[in-house]
Amino acid sequence: MVDITHKEVTLRIATAEATVVLSSQDTVMAIREGRVPKGDVFEMSKAAGLLGVKKTPDLLPDCHPIPIEGTQIEYDLSGLEIRIRVTVRTHYKTGVEVEAMHGASVVALNLYDMLKPLDKGIEIRLIRLLEKRGGKSDILRG
Amino acid sequence: MVDITHKEVTLRIATAEATVVLSSQDTVMAIREGRVPKGDVFEMSKAAGLLGVKKTPDLLPDCHPIPIEGTQIEYDLSGLEIRIRVTVRTHYKTGVEVEAMHGASVVALNLYDMLKPLDKGIEIRLIRLLEKRGGKSDILRG
Amino acid sequence: MVDITHKEVTLRIATAEATVVLSSQDTVMAIREGRVPKGDVFEMSKAAGLLGVKKTPDLLPDCHPIPIEGTQIEYDLSGLEIRIRVTVRTHYKTGVEVEAMHGASVVALNLYDMLKPLDKGIEIRLIRLLEKRGGKSDILRG
Amino acid sequence: MVDITHKEVTLRIATAEATVVLSSQDTVMAIREGRVPKGDVFEMSKAAGLLGVKKTPDLLPDCHPIPIEGTQIEYDLSGLEIRIRVTVRTHYKTGVEVEAMHGASVVALNLYDMLKPLDKGIEIRLIRLLEKRGGKSDILRG
Amino acid sequence: MVDITHKEVTLRIATAEATVVLSSQDTVMAIREGRVPKGDVFEMSKAAGLLGVKKTPDLLPDCHPIPIEGTQIEYDLSGLEIRIRVTVRTHYKTGVEVEAMHGASVVALNLYDMLKPLDKGIEIRLIRLLEKRGGKSDILRG
Amino acid sequence: MVDITHKEVTLRIATAEATVVLSSQDTVMAIREGRVPKGDVFEMSKAAGLLGVKKTPDLLPDCHPIPIEGTQIEYDLSGLEIRIRVTVRTHYKTGVEVEAMHGASVVALNLYDMLKPLDKGIEIRLIRLLEKRGGKSDILRG
Repeated sequence: MVDITHKEVTLRIATAEATVVLSSQDTVMAIREGRVPKGDVFEMSKAAGLLGVKKTPDLLPDCHPIPIEGTQIEYDLSGLEIRIRVTVRTHYKTGVEVEAMHGASVVALNLYDMLKPLDKGIEIRLIRLLEKRGGKSDILRG
Repeated sequence: MVDITHKEVTLRIATAEATVVLSSQDTVMAIREGRVPKGDVFEMSKAAGLLGVKKTPDLLPDCHPIPIEGTQIEYDLSGLEIRIRVTVRTHYKTGVEVEAMHGASVVALNLYDMLKPLDKGIEIRLIRLLEKRGGKSDILRG
Repeated sequence: MVDITHKEVTLRIATAEATVVLSSQDTVMAIREGRVPKGDVFEMSKAAGLLGVKKTPDLLPDCHPIPIEGTQIEYDLSGLEIRIRVTVRTHYKTGVEVEAMHGASVVALNLYDMLKPLDKGIEIRLIRLLEKRGGKSDILRG
Repeated sequence: MVDITHKEVTLRIATAEATVVLSSQDTVMAIREGRVPKGDVFEMSKAAGLLGVKKTPDLLPDCHPIPIEGTQIEYDLSGLEIRIRVTVRTHYKTGVEVEAMHGASVVALNLYDMLKPLDKGIEIRLIRLLEKRGGKSDILRG
Repeated sequence: MVDITHKEVTLRIATAEATVVLSSQDTVMAIREGRVPKGDVFEMSKAAGLLGVKKTPDLLPDCHPIPIEGTQIEYDLSGLEIRIRVTVRTHYKTGVEVEAMHGASVVALNLYDMLKPLDKGIEIRLIRLLEKRGGKSDILRG
Repeated sequence: MVDITHKEVTLRIATAEATVVLSSQDTVMAIREGRVPKGDVFEMSKAAGLLGVKKTPDLLPDCHPIPIEGTQIEYDLSGLEIRIRVTVRTHYKTGVEVEAMHGASVVALNLYDMLKPLDKGIEIRLIRLLEKRGGKSDILRG
């Protein structure tokens, strides 16, 4: 794990996105009408994602433990696609990009897990970093 | 979490796939020539993925703890794409699809984490179930 | 940790209850009207409780790891009291009483954590086993 | 998880209390005379509680990871009641009330788990915050 | 992780040993007279070791999750040496040698951690498998 | 857990060493020629050790959670001995000796776990602190 003892503490923000693609309009209706037997998929997946962000260094060997100071999880359901956006904030010596990516992937997997009994064709498409501020360079993507 | 006390124990196998897309041929060369500073990306990500499969029920609230009896992780690097294939096996009352999906996503995230210093444009595309045997129905995809 | 190698596998069910006591009717209204800033307290605490049941042997040294086969979490909000009921099921050599108690306590703590910004006087009263079936003796309480 | 990036680092101290009620004087005698088969209930439950305080953000989705700088666990056995007092200290941007409450609940559950073979009627009564210093306001309770 | 789906479930027992060597008779006296400020080193390290045995597959990528059915931890303090003996039992398709070795190492490390303020020269010498029964072959060592 | 709220934040570095002793030259050759069926033992054990360092306060009750800022793992294979050296760095109020010791022990156990199918006589000899800087006193050992 890279030595960051000499790095400066700055505000770091990263936003990652994951897209879950459902295979049928029936699944969309079940979500919108609150008929998914396992519960409210958005609230429960938010809980999973909040925990997932914090557990990133438990899963990825080279990832520094980081004092997560804020996590925001948003959903956008349009057509057959659920877009998940996870923003993580910290003041620390290294960034939170991987934490945001991991959070987005856990939210996506939990949607998959809760919806699997209703829809056998769900896929997770595209987990990527949207934005990163703080540190040596910023990244901004449409 | 769904009650599975009445379900039968059978052999369950699931294979999931994740695709990591690099943004530059230089990253491919760094991998092939063993020049990634954080170490051997395939071996270390395999370690992360093996642990990830086992930790699935720690992250996903509705997921049953399952006695994982075998996990196989394979890579295929072609062009700018790394395809990850994770196969999980168990004898149990419920399947290991989500475990395989989670394993594939952790391997992909660890590749992202280790390669990030070299390549700022890596994306994870398509995490999906390829195959599932055992249980009520089988799924086989090309 | 007690040796259970010689014990018989039977169906085991345990139900535990925890009671969260709010200090003001305003908190009740905020919950009922979905105005708690941290989100849906019942769904998110259910997610925490489902994970909590599974993590019991991670926290309690003498507790055997048990293949949890079903967990059900129910709420009853009446006056200033929220009663939480957690039922856990397994086929195993030892019971799931402590798992149900731990699940109930995690749900109660998560309600406390989410409601704390609105209500400084919340208490958790009475965590107890309500019912236990399977094993040497059954326990049934009103 | 609430954004605390702008908050000030101050010394934070919280004390929580949990009460375990035994159902028989025989259990009290077994504890006092060191005859509990699973071991020294106070020392082992202290170990569980120390770990529990640190694991709070692993269980509660909205809870920030906090650099715990001190944890003190005390017992008071009087009549059939064991009162557990857990004090947690940190210098951080948010308080340690939930950590103290979680620590107290884990100690209580571990006492329950270790004493269960001797006493089937144990209950956990009242988990509450006793005292909190640092942050916007202090709370002091008798 | 090796595929064990085809293997037979049998009773498996493994005993491992670790030796902690103190550097001064004063440390021995502090232990014997209960004067170690952090608490009862044998009881608290037993708690850590019981948890450690269960967490082995969380730390070692290739290690199967195993339903631990019993763990016994014993100490022998003689001269400047503390010998730790950890026995683990299960009915499963693979053995518990690594679990016993991991348990012994966690007990040893916890003794080190608790005694470090009193004794700067403690070493952990020799962690090894003493005995293993069940599976293809037995191992018995003096 | 000792109160460190008043202690000063300084740079802390600790190096620990563990020695794994193989029982046969055949095992050495299998490692050198990359013929260990479970994979590259040095890379995979490095992954386990990096995670192990971070998980130390999850296993040892009295150990403070520490923001690990760098971990370095090195191997030296000579004769039948593999020497593992783990160096951990942080800026914090307490040192990282136990983290380095725990990391070294996890690396050693993972080597044992991966090589066990080839060599039944592996032992872990001597886990000890080599060096410690920062804090009240430095320790330097040959």
